[in-house]
Amino acid sequence: MKIAVIGGVAAGTSAAARAKRKMPEAEITIFEQDTDISYSGCGLPYYISDLIEDREDVIIYTPQRFAEKKEVVVKSQHQVQEIKPQAKKIIVKDLKNDKIQEVDYDKLLISTGASPIEPPIDGSELENIFTLRNVNSADKIKDFIATNNPQQAVVIGGGYIGLEMAENLLESNIDVTVVEQAKQILTNFDEDMANIVEDHLVDKGVDVVTNDGVEKFVGEETVEKVITASGEEIETDFVLLSIGVKPNVELAQEAGIELGETGAIKVNSKLETSAPDVYAAGDCVETKHMITDEAVWIPLGSTANKQGRVAGSNLANLDDEFKGVLGTAISKVCDLGVARTGLTVKEAEDAGYQVVSSQIKTRNHAGYYPNAKILTIKLVVEEETGLILGAQVIGEEDADKKIDVLATAIYNEMKADELIELDLSYAPPFSIPKDGLMVAGIVADKKRQ
Amino acid sequence: MKIAVIGGVAAGTSAAARAKRKMPEAEITIFEQDTDISYSGCGLPYYISDLIEDREDVIIYTPQRFAEKKEVVVKSQHQVQEIKPQAKKIIVKDLKNDKIQEVDYDKLLISTGASPIEPPIDGSELENIFTLRNVNSADKIKDFIATNNPQQAVVIGGGYIGLEMAENLLESNIDVTVVEQAKQILTNFDEDMANIVEDHLVDKGVDVVTNDGVEKFVGEETVEKVITASGEEIETDFVLLSIGVKPNVELAQEAGIELGETGAIKVNSKLETSAPDVYAAGDCVETKHMITDEAVWIPLGSTANKQGRVAGSNLANLDDEFKGVLGTAISKVCDLGVARTGLTVKEAEDAGYQVVSSQIKTRNHAGYYPNAKILTIKLVVEEETGLILGAQVIGEEDADKKIDVLATAIYNEMKADELIELDLSYAPPFSIPKDGLMVAGIVADKKRQ
Repeated sequence: MKIAVIGGVAAGTSAAARAKRKMPEAEITIFEQDTDISYSGCGLPYYISDLIEDREDVIIYTPQRFAEKKEVVVKSQHQVQEIKPQAKKIIVKDLKNDKIQEVDYDKLLISTGASPIEPPIDGSELENIFTLRNVNSADKIKDFIATNNPQQAVVIGGGYIGLEMAENLLESNIDVTVVEQAKQILTNFDEDMANIVEDHLVDKGVDVVTNDGVEKFVGEETVEKVITASGEEIETDFVLLSIGVKPNVELAQEAGIELGETGAIKVNSKLETSAPDVYAAGDCVETKHMITDEAVWIPLGSTANKQGRVAGSNLANLDDEFKGVLGTAISKVCDLGVARTGLTVKEAEDAGYQVVSSQIKTRNHAGYYPNAKILTIKLVVEEETGLILGAQVIGEEDADKKIDVLATAIYNEMKADELIELDLSYAPPFSIPKDGLMVAGIVADKKRQ
Repeated sequence: MKIAVIGGVAAGTSAAARAKRKMPEAEITIFEQDTDISYSGCGLPYYISDLIEDREDVIIYTPQRFAEKKEVVVKSQHQVQEIKPQAKKIIVKDLKNDKIQEVDYDKLLISTGASPIEPPIDGSELENIFTLRNVNSADKIKDFIATNNPQQAVVIGGGYIGLEMAENLLESNIDVTVVEQAKQILTNFDEDMANIVEDHLVDKGVDVVTNDGVEKFVGEETVEKVITASGEEIETDFVLLSIGVKPNVELAQEAGIELGETGAIKVNSKLETSAPDVYAAGDCVETKHMITDEAVWIPLGSTANKQGRVAGSNLANLDDEFKGVLGTAISKVCDLGVARTGLTVKEAEDAGYQVVSSQIKTRNHAGYYPNAKILTIKLVVEEETGLILGAQVIGEEDADKKIDVLATAIYNEMKADELIELDLSYAPPFSIPKDGLMVAGIVADKKRQ
């Protein structure tokens, strides 16, 4: 059996490795247009600030090592130009010598990922306007900083990547302004929670501009100023564009493979596309939200990894399913862990739920034990049933712990007033007897009455 | 309505506060034989080592402050000598002046806690043999260390309190030997997991003697040597006895209130005892194990707190239930978090389950992100059904996080192979894409086949 995989980052490599393990006789080839495969996109901001010093550290496997270790063929710098689902062929161009070849497959995986959105802004052609996409693009930013010793940066976009970049630029002693078009940063959080993060960024010395888009970039050869829609002029040495990402669906679309309502590739729970023997996984596909049962596109490394495993099993003729996502995500923003799962109030209301919510402050461990930190926990609860629909947690310690417990609670369709029945671990260095999750559950449940 | 509460630490104070909030007109009196109420027993080891410097820090409320804030009467240094359930009276002795009075109640809560077991060992009458029971007993140990500058200590008993004390004595620059009669320390863990902790203690410079009990204490006025059953002689400046605790049930037993098979007070899910209008909560009661449905006695501060809330509601004529425990517990042992929930292999087999188990090593966060630590996760899974019956987690970081997720999974009767479907949070500073919980679930599930 010949298996072709288009794209070799999270989903592609994990699918290829899984398929080979389950079907050792399969001939598996990964085609990746980039020089690198199997790198940690989520680690790149920390690589730029030198918190992670070595390039190799964000690259889990080089193409050579992956090929040896996993016994699959890896063709990096090979761009797939066309998928022919009827003929079960792909057209591949070797970017090193421009040679084009046709490759047969029995089963195909599309794991083409996502790319930064680059909006048509006046002045975008100026130098020193960067996007963060892969290790090579991170190298460019890192080299620019090392060579030019810039003093000021503007980050366009106040999502996870923008804020992680803001933190890491601060670490490199660069003054940072974050410009966000929406009325709040972190638009996938409720405003009251996003404001906690905004205040923290301001405390750390970041200028945060919200409710204001970019009108144009101004400069001679290099960008010198960002002009916003409201007319503000922000001087800068460089710009990072991180207004969001879009799924890489062109190949699939041109091959007549069905896209979903979100614009990403449509797959069923087996990660099959509309074309026979063509699977898709990772940032290029949409998936089912486990609460609403609606299609969502929430590209995340954790999901890509799990989908890769499922796709790999199915490529190897097993029968595995991907059940969907809760939209659980976390980001470190300076000293804060900023985490969410399920639905925000806004998302829940948009999906037609009537909800109540609680926002409580608690400590991560006993107040008398050194270094206790404040945690803010927000629960979103369906008014009629008491079901927990979502949660947001922000704090210097243990936001990850609390959100994982809540993601597990939501997966199991727990109600807010059941949280107090959980037998969670208590000792002064780790927690408090009346855990904040229990308090949040009680407070939210009371609001229903 | 007159409510009397016997014992004012975790369960007693939380019940009294809850009852008053729910029934402001109730006259509530707490009788506590000790001088202190509402202290954190779990914080005492850290108070002894001065990690927590102020006595007030481990005392959540003084009797006066609790009385004012919660509007209940607090009678400390008042010992209840008898309960007369038929007459709905208790006999109380004021320890300050030996006066005895009879007090009426409409509803009574017994929250008398537990006490250290002091076995009849030869030489127990010698000076400088301590137990840790309350703030006053911690004061004695702390004063002894400050005054005598001891060089060596023997801790008898390798359970949580013994090991927490070993850590805190090390912090005070005292050489520590832990003597444990069983063949392993931490007898509520499987041996393979307990051994990780033993190795860590040895690394830290603690002498650990297992499989050996104490034969006698030897010395002139003060203890100078511990002689073990195997004949080992251990020189020491003082001894801490922490071989375990027993429920304080004498008052209840003498009043004809039924005890359970564990020897602790028997209560139903409303925390009612066999006597009308007499409730019991906290370390003196047995409770239902949520997996086995059997009665267990697992005295813990977290449980006492939650039971106090339930008892308080029911004292105030509401209708609340305590659903039981999973035996979730955690302890900090030097650099390690040492956590468990549900059943160990041994406990599961003793309860009649056929089980498989997995023990895996993982990292708490991305290996390339600074300060990643090893976590060891053990899952205990029912062979026939795949249900997760228990888990043990040990590691320098995030043992608490993993055990709380697993406690939530077990509460919800999840199966090992479902763990991979959880949508847990991922970002390099917090976790890895293929979370150790998922790996542990997959490995355990495979062993079933």
